[in-house]
Order: sequence, then structure tokens, then C-alpha cells
Amino acid sequence: MKLTFELDHIGVAVESLEKGKPFWETLGLGPMTTERVDSEKVLTGFFELGNDARIELLEPTHPDSPIAKYLSKRGPGIHHICLKVNDIRAVMKALKAQGVQLINEEPKLGAHDCEVAFIHPKSTGGILLELSQPRGAK
Amino acid sequence: MKLTFELDHIGVAVESLEKGKPFWETLGLGPMTTERVDSEKVLTGFFELGNDARIELLEPTHPDSPIAKYLSKRGPGIHHICLKVNDIRAVMKALKAQGVQLINEEPKLGAHDCEVAFIHPKSTGGILLELSQPRGAK
Repeated sequence: MKLTFELDHIGVAVESLEKGKPFWETLGLGPMTTERVDSEKVLTGFFELGNDARIELLEPTHPDSPIAKYLSKRGPGIHHICLKVNDIRAVMKALKAQGVQLINEEPKLGAHDCEVAFIHPKSTGGILLELSQPRGAK
Repeated sequence: MKLTFELDHIGVAVESLEKGKPFWETLGLGPMTTERVDSEKVLTGFFELGNDARIELLEPTHPDSPIAKYLSKRGPGIHHICLKVNDIRAVMKALKAQGVQLINEEPKLGAHDCEVAFIHPKSTGGILLELSQPRGAK
């Protein structure tokens, strides 16, 4: 099977969804939909774009959240980008074989019932890169 | 006319295309296509993704390039994101009316024969946001 890659979303760290959403609404996007992702200790807010892509706002729900740590170090802004793939395990295996540093050894459950895994910025040229595959989509 | 927004590309600052491209090739993307954009003093390298979106690597061609300044301050990583719109002048006018801080008062010519304009990170929640419209596409 040929591996496919789509630009799924941009993850944006915000102090709160209330503070982060007005700009995107001004642009003409919305309404925002929200989902709590306990595994990442975040409340997410999604704005849909035209080509099956989206902006994902990320509000920390706990001081231990990776987003809380990001905000305290760098302030609001782009936290990660996410590529949707059709076989996350095959991509992870290929990357690992090439010495790419993965943050997750196995996929875990993310927003929108997707399996997700993160690649370390050291291996990507400074980008926290998420891979995502809808469950059961293979 | 209804305004439309698509996630067009992620702009990634790299010291050189040669240094920046191997990760994306390891992922299975490519071949990379290149284009010099003199207005921004950059050499760009594009990797196509499945949903009419792409990764854009940005190598400075001059010490005065905005990318050279970005690299010296923050190192390699995500420089901007770009939304493709169907009427860039209408979007800019609406944003300006709402007090959003635009970096360009008028669209200018970018890569791929597009008219582009940038929105200041102060107005977007910490993101340098590019708007882009293919010329003659309205």
C-alpha cells in the first residue's frame, strides 16, 4: 500500500480558547467545536478549513500539561503541525529504521478518535510533528 | 461571494535546503521543487502533500532576508503558516476594519505566481500568518 500524507492541522497553544478564538472568527472561520483530550491534558478548539484541514487551539487543563509548559517558556503560538497518514505504524517503523527520534514508541489516542504519535523536533528541523490516523481507517 | 480558506502550506526556516530536506524525504515525500523568491530574499523548496497542501522550506539568500534574521534569533523551525483565500483584498479589508495589524498594506508577489500578504503575530495569537491567492484566480 502506498503511504499517503495530508496536512491535517496546525496546533496552536493558547492561554484559553476564549482568548484564542476571536482572531479566527474575525477571519470568517467557525463556529469552533471543542473536545477535551485527557491524555494531553488539553481542551481543544477546532476551526475547519476548506481542504479537510483545520486550526486546533490548545488550552491547558492542568499545570502539568505540555501546553502549559510551552506557554510558560514561549508564550502563545504554533505548538505543532499534524500530518494525517493512512498507516501510522508503517510510517513509524520506517522512521525508526532511519534513526528518526520518536517521542511515542506506540500510537496513542488523540482528538477525533485518531491514533497519534509525535516526532521529536531534533529529527525534523525544529518542528514538533504529529502523525495521525483515524481509527479503523486503514 | 463567500470567502473560502484552505491550509496551503507551512513555511519552515532552514539553514539550507540541503540540510532541511532529508527528513521530509525520509518520510516519503518529494521530489522537492525549488523556486527563488527575490522579494523575500529566499530560495524555497516545496514538498507536496495529499490535500493540495505543502511544506515550504525557506533558505535565506542574503543576510538581510527575514529568514536569516529568524534563524539567528530562533534557529530552524516553523516560520509561518499560509491560508489560501479566494479574495485576498476582501479578507485584508475586513481584517483592517476590525483593527487587525497587517504587515503588508497591499498584496505582493510571492512564490507560485500568487499574491500574498502577511498578518502580524500580535493580532493572531503569536502566529505569522500569510494569506495567498493565485493570480487571476478570483
